[in-house]
Amino acid sequence: MNEERWLLPAGIEEVLPPEAQIVESLRRDLLDLYAGWGYELVIPPFIDYLESLLTGTGQDLDLQTFKLTDQLTGRLLGVRADMTPQVARMDAHHLRRDVPTRLCYLGTVLRTRPDGFASTRSPLQIGAEIYGHAGIESDAEILQLVMLTLRTAGITESYLDLGHVGIYRGLACQAELDAAQEHALFDALQRKAIPEIESLIGRFGLSGPIADMLASLAELNGADALAQADDVLRAADRPVREALDYLRGLAEELRRWLPEVGVHYDLAELRGYRYKTGVVFAAFVPDWGLEIARGGRYDDIGQVFGRARPAVGFSTDLKGLLRHGKGLEGRVQDSGRILAPWSSDPALREAVERLRASGCTVINALPGFEQDPRQLGCQQQLVCRDGRWEPHDIDTIDNQ
Amino acid sequence: MNEERWLLPAGIEEVLPPEAQIVESLRRDLLDLYAGWGYELVIPPFIDYLESLLTGTGQDLDLQTFKLTDQLTGRLLGVRADMTPQVARMDAHHLRRDVPTRLCYLGTVLRTRPDGFASTRSPLQIGAEIYGHAGIESDAEILQLVMLTLRTAGITESYLDLGHVGIYRGLACQAELDAAQEHALFDALQRKAIPEIESLIGRFGLSGPIADMLASLAELNGADALAQADDVLRAADRPVREALDYLRGLAEELRRWLPEVGVHYDLAELRGYRYKTGVVFAAFVPDWGLEIARGGRYDDIGQVFGRARPAVGFSTDLKGLLRHGKGLEGRVQDSGRILAPWSSDPALREAVERLRASGCTVINALPGFEQDPRQLGCQQQLVCRDGRWEPHDIDTIDNQ
Repeated sequence: MNEERWLLPAGIEEVLPPEAQIVESLRRDLLDLYAGWGYELVIPPFIDYLESLLTGTGQDLDLQTFKLTDQLTGRLLGVRADMTPQVARMDAHHLRRDVPTRLCYLGTVLRTRPDGFASTRSPLQIGAEIYGHAGIESDAEILQLVMLTLRTAGITESYLDLGHVGIYRGLACQAELDAAQEHALFDALQRKAIPEIESLIGRFGLSGPIADMLASLAELNGADALAQADDVLRAADRPVREALDYLRGLAEELRRWLPEVGVHYDLAELRGYRYKTGVVFAAFVPDWGLEIARGGRYDDIGQVFGRARPAVGFSTDLKGLLRHGKGLEGRVQDSGRILAPWSSDPALREAVERLRASGCTVINALPGFEQDPRQLGCQQQLVCRDGRWEPHDIDTIDNQ
Repeated sequence: MNEERWLLPAGIEEVLPPEAQIVESLRRDLLDLYAGWGYELVIPPFIDYLESLLTGTGQDLDLQTFKLTDQLTGRLLGVRADMTPQVARMDAHHLRRDVPTRLCYLGTVLRTRPDGFASTRSPLQIGAEIYGHAGIESDAEILQLVMLTLRTAGITESYLDLGHVGIYRGLACQAELDAAQEHALFDALQRKAIPEIESLIGRFGLSGPIADMLASLAELNGADALAQADDVLRAADRPVREALDYLRGLAEELRRWLPEVGVHYDLAELRGYRYKTGVVFAAFVPDWGLEIARGGRYDDIGQVFGRARPAVGFSTDLKGLLRHGKGLEGRVQDSGRILAPWSSDPALREAVERLRASGCTVINALPGFEQDPRQLGCQQQLVCRDGRWEPHDIDTIDNQ
């Protein structure tokens, strides 16, 4: 029984010292980074009516959302599995500004099951969004923030994967697929299951250029995919060519702003296809199969909350960043802990207050524990000499 | 339907700008305060096995705890309604140190029903604990932190209410009350229901000094209660007198460390009677009936997790502090937002990076929104003159 009480549920983590201090330090640096770019912090509630959580970007999250019954109303509540729908509501319903609005957020989200290979069910989600601007400039700004976020977390090697849901959406429309067909092919594309894709195209009775284009989509990925698409998708209708032009424009913008970042294109990349409306992206680190940050454009996400605005944003898991960042231990600058004897001597008290105000950690010695100050992690001790309390190295004191 | 999606459940709050920034700023100041005293940050998980949450200080929280079923195991989970049991587990099971351990924590907790008059069901709980030291010195340190916490939050007027569960516990033992009687009288004492207390004492067949002492307990409160108790409780057994001596020792310690703070004594104060083992306290602000911070001693709380240690701590609701603090708006130091034109001119980019690194907020102008920069909250704009990009006041630019 005692043993049971020590256990944490699978995928649910507690953070002990000194890791918790690293989390806190990275948290502050990232929020300060976003603040410097004009992103205002918002704090969405931890639980919400289920119907608020499962709108827009949340519609894929039903199974992933823990449900609760509100004892006050009998209505169904959900624990947030993603904060994006809540932030969209703030923009649409509360802030209602006419100018572009930049918001950022940070907090724990819960999932009923571990997501993909990452074993956590409680990511510390951090993200940023721009509402009210449609265009490559806001996409490019968000992508710059993604890369700065990784760099701040000590992730020096990473690359971007870019796609645009308008390409498949346009081809599906051009092929006159019905909703069930569009979904079946989408599903096969997600898995890049080429034989299945070809068999579906045959079953849908497609042939000629549109069949060729849909069949080649899964292979349009890599650094040159955009150039290849010019040729491969030349028979596509205007919406598809517009999506390609948009991606090309964004690629040019990224070359200007992020010349050092490798960009892969994946034109069958359809993460969040149901609610995304334009660019979709993910950031990867080498030797790790899973994306470390993701995002995209989801215009009109605020519509269910009464106000449709263009929107683009990204999010990541702060604890996931820590698993991949280098040199993070340096964030815990233990500038030295100083032991103070237990005494209410006003001169000592003043010395302690001064040291703490200057950023030092001063620990009160509690009577009954007169053991080695080193066990309390202290390298220095306050000692009174000639009426003045000053920190002295423990070793020096020992040798006197 | 749209209207419904705007609603938040009762007692569940979202925090918008600029309030969110005030919360963040106070959060940082408080964690830095605790760090300066040697308290290490821990981050307990948001959900936990129910049996872990409802131990020790959590045993009163069953009805207040939201329950979830773990889809992975079918076991019952709870959303934390208080972080103290989780922090006790960290000390007992993971840290296992032999020296006093100081821990602090901050995070949202959820309650199924609003607590007392405070209408929230999602307080932002912040607190600090000392494990491994029994004595008035650790009590006094925690009480100093309570008062510094209030002061940091801009609460200048407050007073402390001090009690000791050993007094009633000792009297109940001396009166040979059984568990049901002890509980019934406890309940009446909590409500200071004098006629009910007297009728219970009669029903229990008590008379003489012990009856008088139990009957007077509810009236032993105020600044002089400790002095009165000397006389009123003079026939009490040793445990009661020891508890009174302990309180007297602590009172003396507080006069040294917190001479400016008013201390009331309430010897029938039994908050958390089931798990508290010594001193209990609460901090109050004038003109508000509810406590703003609370805590006490709960030795052996870690026993269920395999290791009993003395423990004393406090907690408060950061959002509650904000409701009572003065001058908090000053925490959002809007040192000026600067608008930068959308351009990848390297000289501009360098100027922007330099400004952001120095703590300024620089907002990129997104093409398509060439309206008044003031609508974006910008008082300055980056302008290129003689090849140098410098911030200029918007008004000056307008007039040129």
